[in-house]
Parts: sequence; structure tokens; C-alpha cells
Amino acid sequence: MKAEIITIGDEILIGQVIDTNSAWIGQQLNPLGWDVTRITTISDTASAITKSLDNGINNSDLIIMTGGLGPTKDDITKKTLCTYFGVDLIFDETAFKNVERIFNHLKREVTQVNRDQALIPANAKALQNNFGTAPGLWFEANNCIIICLPGVPYEMKDILSNFVFPQLKKRSSDIVSHRTLVVSGIPESLISEQIESIELSLPAELKIAYLPNYGVVRLRISGKGKDAAKIEAELNKTVSSIENILGKHVIANSDKRIEEVVGDLLSIRKESVSVAESCTGGFVAHLITSTPGSSAYFPGSVVTYSYENKTEVLGVDAELLWNKGAVSQEVVEKMAKAVRLKNNTDYGVAISGIAGPSGGTEDKPVGTVWMAVTNGTKTQSKVYHLKGDRRQNIERSGNLALELLRQIILA
Amino acid sequence: MKAEIITIGDEILIGQVIDTNSAWIGQQLNPLGWDVTRITTISDTASAITKSLDNGINNSDLIIMTGGLGPTKDDITKKTLCTYFGVDLIFDETAFKNVERIFNHLKREVTQVNRDQALIPANAKALQNNFGTAPGLWFEANNCIIICLPGVPYEMKDILSNFVFPQLKKRSSDIVSHRTLVVSGIPESLISEQIESIELSLPAELKIAYLPNYGVVRLRISGKGKDAAKIEAELNKTVSSIENILGKHVIANSDKRIEEVVGDLLSIRKESVSVAESCTGGFVAHLITSTPGSSAYFPGSVVTYSYENKTEVLGVDAELLWNKGAVSQEVVEKMAKAVRLKNNTDYGVAISGIAGPSGGTEDKPVGTVWMAVTNGTKTQSKVYHLKGDRRQNIERSGNLALELLRQIILA
Repeated sequence: MKAEIITIGDEILIGQVIDTNSAWIGQQLNPLGWDVTRITTISDTASAITKSLDNGINNSDLIIMTGGLGPTKDDITKKTLCTYFGVDLIFDETAFKNVERIFNHLKREVTQVNRDQALIPANAKALQNNFGTAPGLWFEANNCIIICLPGVPYEMKDILSNFVFPQLKKRSSDIVSHRTLVVSGIPESLISEQIESIELSLPAELKIAYLPNYGVVRLRISGKGKDAAKIEAELNKTVSSIENILGKHVIANSDKRIEEVVGDLLSIRKESVSVAESCTGGFVAHLITSTPGSSAYFPGSVVTYSYENKTEVLGVDAELLWNKGAVSQEVVEKMAKAVRLKNNTDYGVAISGIAGPSGGTEDKPVGTVWMAVTNGTKTQSKVYHLKGDRRQNIERSGNLALELLRQIILA
Repeated sequence: MKAEIITIGDEILIGQVIDTNSAWIGQQLNPLGWDVTRITTISDTASAITKSLDNGINNSDLIIMTGGLGPTKDDITKKTLCTYFGVDLIFDETAFKNVERIFNHLKREVTQVNRDQALIPANAKALQNNFGTAPGLWFEANNCIIICLPGVPYEMKDILSNFVFPQLKKRSSDIVSHRTLVVSGIPESLISEQIESIELSLPAELKIAYLPNYGVVRLRISGKGKDAAKIEAELNKTVSSIENILGKHVIANSDKRIEEVVGDLLSIRKESVSVAESCTGGFVAHLITSTPGSSAYFPGSVVTYSYENKTEVLGVDAELLWNKGAVSQEVVEKMAKAVRLKNNTDYGVAISGIAGPSGGTEDKPVGTVWMAVTNGTKTQSKVYHLKGDRRQNIERSGNLALELLRQIILA
């Protein structure tokens, strides 16, 4: 069962907004046995919508189209669909009740613009939108299901989860299953050489993909077919073979981010961590607290952005700061030790660097980042020379600091 | 001049990775006068690549294709391009020198897998990859430029910036210009009604789009044509008319995020802010410090995740915490005041809530978030009942707290 996602919106084409909707839809469809074969983002013009619909209906069993259903004038999807199917807009009583419900809740009057939200193409079935006034639309034509949804993420997700996915599950036949191994400390090309024999003898149902990011490579092993038991057995066998070869470089055998891997380790050991951040400005704390349940091992942290703050909050010697600079081994080690004691945690992590774009010197160019991790008895520090922009340097530093923490926990 | 972006990668189709490359490319191409009319993500199979190339070459003047140029077996773009153009792979001496340079730097031996990176289709020109071993490729066929790039973001960006964009700028003729107004405190449908007359009499060169997110609506006014002066004049006139109608609801007249708007206000007033975060766990500090130059108005912050930490670091009365709960007006107000004094800043911001998925009670369900902002003499607090998942609740809370800060600064 082949699916396509069509996203309508100039804001994505000009790069003002990143298309996260399609990623979410892809994640959900895949385990239901629907294979997303193409994601297309197009302009909100009638011709672009018509062309992509034509193309999709001939190639796929399902099209999920998002965007272009809002109340404002740049939203033309509904009219284009009417023209495409040769039908009129009709007033849908249930969709209008939903518009009224939402406006009553907001204690606002229903305007004409809002009333028009209840107009739907005559050949469509309206799908209830719990969080907005634009209903989702379900069409069937040429053996293809076409779902049109508003682009607002929580409205789109709610409509799909409640009214679309349960139906799609019933109509699919293939089993799809994925495993992910997170591999650290070994580059993509070396992994490829080491597991070459496995790849060459891979069962027809399986596929291996390499997803490198932030010095970590995710190996995704996918299986697809009719026989669930066979696919699971093949996946298990392949995953074990790879784990045997790559050994301790496999830091997780599910699709976990480094903050989840570290969180799991701390939870199991009933240990805790606190963080003192300078250049990462709260990003490491944000990564750690993104994981539900992190309060069990993370009591808190500090961002000490200024020199004064490093001295007053963490007791870093002012003279040391001026002699060695805030971005130095001595200062991050002191910060790590101080934040650990201050928060009474098992581990202390500290980062200080120059994220850019300015602030670099000849000695310490933009991208120079010192980080330290201490467990009280042993303190380890590392320096990196990163080459990204501000955002990338912050993100990369945060990930690298958590990887250093992981190593110290396991040392 | 029409451009298309084709992204190759199953990891995007199954939603394991979000396609941020295309957004970046779209952002860069647009001001160069190239109109991105379609972004397509496809599977890394020969048939999908061939079909999308065919489609693109017939519809566009430029195709930028990313992904599928790595050294590993799942990367088949190069072979498919050879078949498509009916040419062989040839050894490129300059591309190989680059592979050697990178491996010398890493003090590693060049393996056969890496050596193959220097093989390129006979009709392509290799583009130097400063950060990786896979060269970019430049083809021209059927009046269409086809650029193939590795999917690793910093490699892709570096190749495009150095070798592709300067050439593309020379070949374009249209002028494209955008303005963005960031509008707060008024819903999309009401904006639409208020500026209806402007939209109805919009010059043919202009277009208005609504981009709602986190309670803020971005109005993007785009102009396109041959006459730069005319477009700028029309944009200026339209922007002023909208600003006049929407008044103080326009919080920025360029595409700024709320943390940038707040940062600008603080910089101009030479004021400063510090933050005490509970449920947002460092995210607000991260937002603030994402802006270059934020050290001028942000000395630091604390994440007080545990009860003990709120008491020890911020002096929140333990009895108050147990009586009212950490998620309460009294506690956030106390936190805001304490962090302001502790960091000696003009403003103090505090947030405490239940991000979810667990931790909710009947009184305070998941999504309940209290936030407070103080300027020392006046303290204002607000409660929200958010409906998202953990990540959304954290992001939304952070944005709302900065909006509250903006209002207090301007009060």
C-alpha cells in the first residue's frame, strides 16, 4: 500500500517554516503497513495542487494533503478540489456545529469567514476537527483515498489519530518493522567495512541505512513483508550479528537520543547529574529535561553566562578567569566540580566555549569549546574545535558533553 | 527561473529525520531570484530517483538534489545518475586529492570505500567538499542545471555557498523580496477581516501569507518581478498600511522570533533579564542565548527542577511549596523575584508547570503552567492550560513566558 504526503505552503518552499508535519505522518503511517514513497511540498496555487493530485492519484493508494484549509485568503485548497472533482461546495451542518462550539468556547461571534469553514466539496466526508474550525476532508477516487487536513500540527495530528489511522490500519496488508542501533566512536565508512559480509548476505526483506549525525551513526535495519514472524526473526538475527561485530560502539539498540541513553544509565544506577553551562546557555539542561522522568536524576542546573556569574554562583576564582579565560580547561573543571557539590549530584558537567558568530580570538577561534565531567574523584575534560554556525555549535557541544558524561558513567 | 529540491532518503520518508536541508536551501535560493516551486523527498531507489529527475528536468531550470552520496551501500545516487545520463564513472584526481587531504588530517588510511568517493559520472563537474570525502556534482542537461550534494548539512551548505550560489545569482533575472510582520494578541481570522481591503486591492506583484504559530501570526508579504524599485515601493506601502491597521499588535516588522524581539528591547534599554525555570528545564535560557550578543543582557539563569533546589537555590519557602505546590502563582512569583535579585538583573522570569506526559493531578492536569515576570516593583503572573505533548508544552511555555516579558518591558 503506497502513500504520498503533499504539503501545501509557500512558507516551506521559501524555507520560513520547516516541514515537521510530514515527518510525523511518516512515523505514524509506516508501522500501519503504509509505505510513504514520496513527500512533496508545493506552492498554494491551483495548478500546483492539481498537478500533484494527478500525479499522486496515479501512483499511490493514499494521499495525505496538509495545509491550505485555513479561513484566510491564501488558502485555496478547497476550491481547487471542487474544480478537480467537478463538484460544488456544500454546507455541512456537523462541521458548522463544530465552528459554533469553538466560537462559543472562545466567547466570540461567528463571522462570515468562519461560517465558510463549514462549506465542503460535495463528494467529501467531513472529519471532525476538535481544536479548530476547518474540518478534515476524506475523498475516494480512482482507487485512491485522499485526505485533506489543516496544516496546524495539533489539529492535523488529532484528526488523523481519531478518524484516519484506525481506517487505514484496516486496509493495509504488509508488515513493516524497524530496528535502530546507535553507534558511537567509529565513522560511517569503517562501520560499512566491518559489517560488509552481513550486508552482502542480507535477506531480501531487509534493508540497512546509515544515518550519521553529531558524531553518532544510527544504523536502521528495516524489514517488510507478509510474514511477521519471519521478518522479526531476520531482524533479530541481523541486529545480533551487527552488535557482535561493533561491540561497545553500540550505545543503544533502539532509536534513542544521547540524552535518553544517559538518562537510562542514570536511572538504572540511581545516580544524578547537574550541569553548569556557559556557551550552551541552557541547551544541555533542555536536552536532559526533554526526557520524561528526568526529575529522578536531574535536580537542576545553572547557566553562568557572565564572568561575574561564574564567580558568584560557582566560586570560580576571578583571577583564574582573567588569567586563563572563561574558555579553558581549568575553568570548566572548576565549574563541573562546583555545580556537582552545589546540587549534591553524583556527576557534574560543565561547558564553556565560543559559539559565535563573534567573540573568537586568534588563540581561541569561534567553535573552541571546553567541556568537563566529574564524578567527584575523577575529572575528565576535552576541547573541541567546531566548525558550525552558532546554533550548530551549541547543539553539537551539548551532544558531545552528554557523550563524555556517558563515557565517565561507564568508566 | 524555477528551482526544485529533491531530497533522497528513506529516513525522511519514515519520519526518523526531519528535512531541514530543504528549508535552508529554499531560504538561500529565494533572494537570488530562484523560485522553489517544489520540494520532493523520495526513497533511495534507482526508479524513484530516475522518475523525479525526469519530472524535474521537464519542469524546472534547476534541480538541487541532496543525499545518497555517502560511502556506504545504501547510497546509490551516483550509479543511478550514470545510468540516467548514459555515462560511466571516471576517477577524478582533484576529488581524490580532497579524500587524501581529509584522511591525512584524521591520521587514517584511505580505504577502498573512501577511494571510490573520487569516482564521478563522466558528464559531471566535481565540486570541492571542504568537510567531507564525497564531492558535489554539477550537471547540465536539457537546459536544466542539476546539482547533487551529500546530505550532511554542513557539507551541503559549504559546497552550495562556495561553488553553486555565486553561479546561480549570475543566471537569474527576477527580483524577489519578502517582508514579515509578526503579529501578537489577535487571531488569524480577525487579522484577515481587518486587512481585507488591503488584500483585495493588492498589486499583482504582491502576495500575502498567514503563518500562525504559538499564538503569534507571521504575515509574510512577498513581491516578485523585474522592477526592483517598483516592488520595494509596493512592499513598503502595503507594510505601512497593515501596520497602521493592526497597530500595537505588530510586535516586529522583520521575521524575528520572540526571543529576538525581547533581546532587541533589552539591548536598546540597556536592561537585563534572568530566568528561573522548572518545567521548561533550560529551554527559555536556550532561546535567549540562541541570539548572538545575548550576553549583553543575560548574565545567567537557574533550572530548579526539584523542590529542594527551589528552596536551596532560590529560597522558596519549603512550607509554601508543600502547601501550594510547585506549580502555583505564589511559587512562580517568589522564584521570579529571587532569581532577579540573585542575578542582579532588571527583570526576573519564572516558569513552573507540568509538561507531561505524567505528573498531572485532578486540580493541576498535564499542561498546567504558571509563569511570572517581575521588574522589582511590579510582578505579573499568568496560568496557561496547554494541550500539547511534553515537547510542545515546553516550547509553548517558553514562548509565552517571553511574550509576557515583552509586555512587562513595554508596560
